[in-house]
Amino acid sequence: MPPARPPQTAQRSLIGTALRRSDIVIMAGAAVFTLGAVLAKGAGAVVPFVVSAVAVALLAALVGRAVDHLADRLGAGAVGVLQSALGNLPELFICIFALRSHLLDVVTSAIIGSILGNLLLVLGLSFFVGGRKHGVLRFSQPRARMIMALMILSVAAMLVPSLASYVHAAAASHEAGLSRITAVVLLVVFALSIPASVRREEAAGRGQRREQGGRATRQAAGSGQSADQSADQDAAPDHAAEREEGHRWPLALAVSVLAVTGLLAAYVSDLFVSALQPAMNAMHISEAFAGLVIVAIAGNAVENAVGVKLAWQNQADHALSVILNSPLQIALVLAPVLVLLSPLVGGAAFTLVFNPMLVSTVGISTLAVAFLVSDGESDWLEGATMVGLYILIAAAFWWG
Amino acid sequence: MPPARPPQTAQRSLIGTALRRSDIVIMAGAAVFTLGAVLAKGAGAVVPFVVSAVAVALLAALVGRAVDHLADRLGAGAVGVLQSALGNLPELFICIFALRSHLLDVVTSAIIGSILGNLLLVLGLSFFVGGRKHGVLRFSQPRARMIMALMILSVAAMLVPSLASYVHAAAASHEAGLSRITAVVLLVVFALSIPASVRREEAAGRGQRREQGGRATRQAAGSGQSADQSADQDAAPDHAAEREEGHRWPLALAVSVLAVTGLLAAYVSDLFVSALQPAMNAMHISEAFAGLVIVAIAGNAVENAVGVKLAWQNQADHALSVILNSPLQIALVLAPVLVLLSPLVGGAAFTLVFNPMLVSTVGISTLAVAFLVSDGESDWLEGATMVGLYILIAAAFWWG
Amino acid sequence: MPPARPPQTAQRSLIGTALRRSDIVIMAGAAVFTLGAVLAKGAGAVVPFVVSAVAVALLAALVGRAVDHLADRLGAGAVGVLQSALGNLPELFICIFALRSHLLDVVTSAIIGSILGNLLLVLGLSFFVGGRKHGVLRFSQPRARMIMALMILSVAAMLVPSLASYVHAAAASHEAGLSRITAVVLLVVFALSIPASVRREEAAGRGQRREQGGRATRQAAGSGQSADQSADQDAAPDHAAEREEGHRWPLALAVSVLAVTGLLAAYVSDLFVSALQPAMNAMHISEAFAGLVIVAIAGNAVENAVGVKLAWQNQADHALSVILNSPLQIALVLAPVLVLLSPLVGGAAFTLVFNPMLVSTVGISTLAVAFLVSDGESDWLEGATMVGLYILIAAAFWWG
Repeated sequence: MPPARPPQTAQRSLIGTALRRSDIVIMAGAAVFTLGAVLAKGAGAVVPFVVSAVAVALLAALVGRAVDHLADRLGAGAVGVLQSALGNLPELFICIFALRSHLLDVVTSAIIGSILGNLLLVLGLSFFVGGRKHGVLRFSQPRARMIMALMILSVAAMLVPSLASYVHAAAASHEAGLSRITAVVLLVVFALSIPASVRREEAAGRGQRREQGGRATRQAAGSGQSADQSADQDAAPDHAAEREEGHRWPLALAVSVLAVTGLLAAYVSDLFVSALQPAMNAMHISEAFAGLVIVAIAGNAVENAVGVKLAWQNQADHALSVILNSPLQIALVLAPVLVLLSPLVGGAAFTLVFNPMLVSTVGISTLAVAFLVSDGESDWLEGATMVGLYILIAAAFWWG
Repeated sequence: MPPARPPQTAQRSLIGTALRRSDIVIMAGAAVFTLGAVLAKGAGAVVPFVVSAVAVALLAALVGRAVDHLADRLGAGAVGVLQSALGNLPELFICIFALRSHLLDVVTSAIIGSILGNLLLVLGLSFFVGGRKHGVLRFSQPRARMIMALMILSVAAMLVPSLASYVHAAAASHEAGLSRITAVVLLVVFALSIPASVRREEAAGRGQRREQGGRATRQAAGSGQSADQSADQDAAPDHAAEREEGHRWPLALAVSVLAVTGLLAAYVSDLFVSALQPAMNAMHISEAFAGLVIVAIAGNAVENAVGVKLAWQNQADHALSVILNSPLQIALVLAPVLVLLSPLVGGAAFTLVFNPMLVSTVGISTLAVAFLVSDGESDWLEGATMVGLYILIAAAFWWG
Repeated sequence: MPPARPPQTAQRSLIGTALRRSDIVIMAGAAVFTLGAVLAKGAGAVVPFVVSAVAVALLAALVGRAVDHLADRLGAGAVGVLQSALGNLPELFICIFALRSHLLDVVTSAIIGSILGNLLLVLGLSFFVGGRKHGVLRFSQPRARMIMALMILSVAAMLVPSLASYVHAAAASHEAGLSRITAVVLLVVFALSIPASVRREEAAGRGQRREQGGRATRQAAGSGQSADQSADQDAAPDHAAEREEGHRWPLALAVSVLAVTGLLAAYVSDLFVSALQPAMNAMHISEAFAGLVIVAIAGNAVENAVGVKLAWQNQADHALSVILNSPLQIALVLAPVLVLLSPLVGGAAFTLVFNPMLVSTVGISTLAVAFLVSDGESDWLEGATMVGLYILIAAAFWWG
């Protein structure tokens, strides 16, 4: 039987019923902090920086949610493309403004920092909280391996120009050319990966509707407990179902929120970058540390909090895919797009030549996390150690 | 029941019935291009180079086939030794002539390039074509892990002199000594690995005969389809059987072909190396790129095409063993033999000290591929990304 | 039913029955060689060095046994803490005396050498002897993966200051600070890991008593053979049981042995370090080689011989845990404690900045071994190759 859409979908045109409480809280916060960032301009070194950082984080979360709802409306095929193209939009704005302000070290560190932050800090935190609550956190081994296989290859490809630049004298003068070739190869891999992720999304969508149908039947039969068990076992469809039930934004709302928050994100990113330089001076923070830790965390804070919360709820598979997709998109989309856009936006020229410390730490961390997740389970001690490793890497960049 | 040899074996003394069509095509091609390479000598910079490269590739394929048939005749025990000792014979000739012409960078790059080419380009292509045709390509996980475990350890051992040379000042002046110790250790590991590969071959041989017997029985019983299914599931014995049926070279033929093609390969390798220098100048190719890409591909082209074809036919296990054995033999046999032969042949002294870019790319690629194959399956996206990574590494060497 | 302690425990207050023959042999040997080390002082360059090295190895073995028996008496909770804090006591003494004698290279090499020695040489030997005897050596995949996951993360953390020091100019002047932060993080990870290892020990303890009970029952029923079989399958409890039966040291004996051997170890370590410098000069051994090979092997020789013996007896799980726990404790406890103690003991300042050759070899070896053991089985060829790799790394340090 074709699983029919539940009839109440039609009644959700009112914005009030479509928005969840967390949406409203984030929107209100984003509005307040965006306003604050505008007003705080020039009010010392630290306040404008902190306020605009929070505003960026909240706007990034809203952009992400608008993209999710929009993709939902446009059908599964659009999810992968939209999420990857727009999911890291605020981070892209920050990087562009930072390049225009010649803060090249901030940009290169922010790119590696977003990867390291998700692989070690956020994944480590989610293993820690999930492991403390549920003992051992289990997730789909083939899926985790597939994401990490692609991650290893993408990170390796992204690092080829750096390796060539510092160990291979003859190529060192061709950094820009090699970076552009690398950018094109990474974007091709991304383009090739879309059909697969579309298929996955469609499969998840079918699973979700089947799940809803099944649940209704079973609940009608009074077997609520067994439905709960199956929801526990099959975390991802259950989550999708949760988003579905009563919380789907109408198309117009999603588009408007995306447009407004996108514009605001661009504007606030500019404020944030302007506030960055005086704040770094006032707080004696190096460019590298600001990029690696502060920019990287501000750009993904809310999304990552969601990932950790999912691990706490024992939805390990969904947590993993939220936490690991973002660094993959940074290697496959954000970094290459910046390489190709860099000559157009002016300012410092961005190439894929990273500081050797960034290259070695991201290389080691990617291989280590690939090994850690390849057995399909994790405990809190592994999580704690990953967080410890992140803290040490951040500490190493504290002095520059 | 002891599986008796099929009676028709006795009738195969005629060369005409022993040769398959592909054998004849390659022999004819080899003859034409070898003659062409002789005639083209001095005809500009590019033509002699291209013609002799094709001649090398075809002669390498013939040497490989002659070795296979000879090993078949001499019994399973000889397969491993013969294949490893003679399988990379044309590449050995090229390296020796290149050393005599003081093209040291060509030799070091060709050795790493043969490993990288098989691990990333050929394996990636076979995952790509196999994955596009059959969805997910599945192969024996323990076997793939065993080959890659040995590969990681051999590559690590092969790289010790390089690491010592550039990060460890005190040992830098002892490159030759450390390289010779490394060569001996690698050859000992190779010698130790022969009994295991002999046992594997014998088991495959028994499997093949049992398979043939079983097939005959089942075909007699009219159950042709189930025999086909079992052949699909058990790829390697099926392939051996295919080679067996009516396509076994008589001993005299195998020995003659090996002797003739071996001599011709030596002669054409000399022509190829002589043509290399003017061609590199004319086409503005660096020594490193010529070794990494051109020499490495010419030496294994036909064998690797077979590997990709096997993946296309969903014989993933057999494809993997064809594709991964060659780089293993290069690390365990070719490189150490060159180290020990180098003082005898004159020309540039060959040590196991590779350019840092070669070391880092082969190290990363080996670990990445070990992770990729360790789950016993692969899809076309992984394959495409591996090819992309190979292209980038090759591009990095384009400028030297 | 609560598994009651067997009644004969009460009768074991006599030292004579509590000591096994191997205990007595080691004690006698330790006494003889300790005396020898005192008397040999000044008798040339080589004799005092060799005699004191053997004395250190034997005292280290006695300290280890006393700690085991003490932990047994104090309950499972104390095992992890005691073993890690005191298990590497002799090595700690040697490192402290070497620092006071300004032999910094000996100390840094000894720390990495203990890790490399156990990961490659001892594990390789045990795979080799176990594999030759039993074909393929199988062990618990999740446990091996868990130890190696923690090992990868700890080694990565331990290497952050080195990476920062030589590839990251800005942090190079903050080596001591970054080393101290790293030391604290590693000790925190160690502290967090104690509850888990306590739980494991308790589980093993319960298993052991259950095993004993079950064995008694079955033996009473005359089914001795089936009990032996189950002991073979369940190696770790069986070993614990073996230690239990009639060979448990009384508390007073364990404390006395620990106190006496601890003091003697401190004293002999001093003699050993004093004898090291003239011996290195006389035998033309570099500081790095002395630390990497000689100090590292002397500190763990007996314990490691036990690990290899267990592999020979097909007790692969127990062998793995004996062999792999020691390098983990060196990274998590010994190295950080030395960093924090170094300013107090005087002499050369110890930081976690290792020679690049040490860093790259330990990094590659850790990843390689993690891959090797992650499939839960190993054969003798892998073992032989690991030993070969160890020999090459040692050879590279022969010249300094």
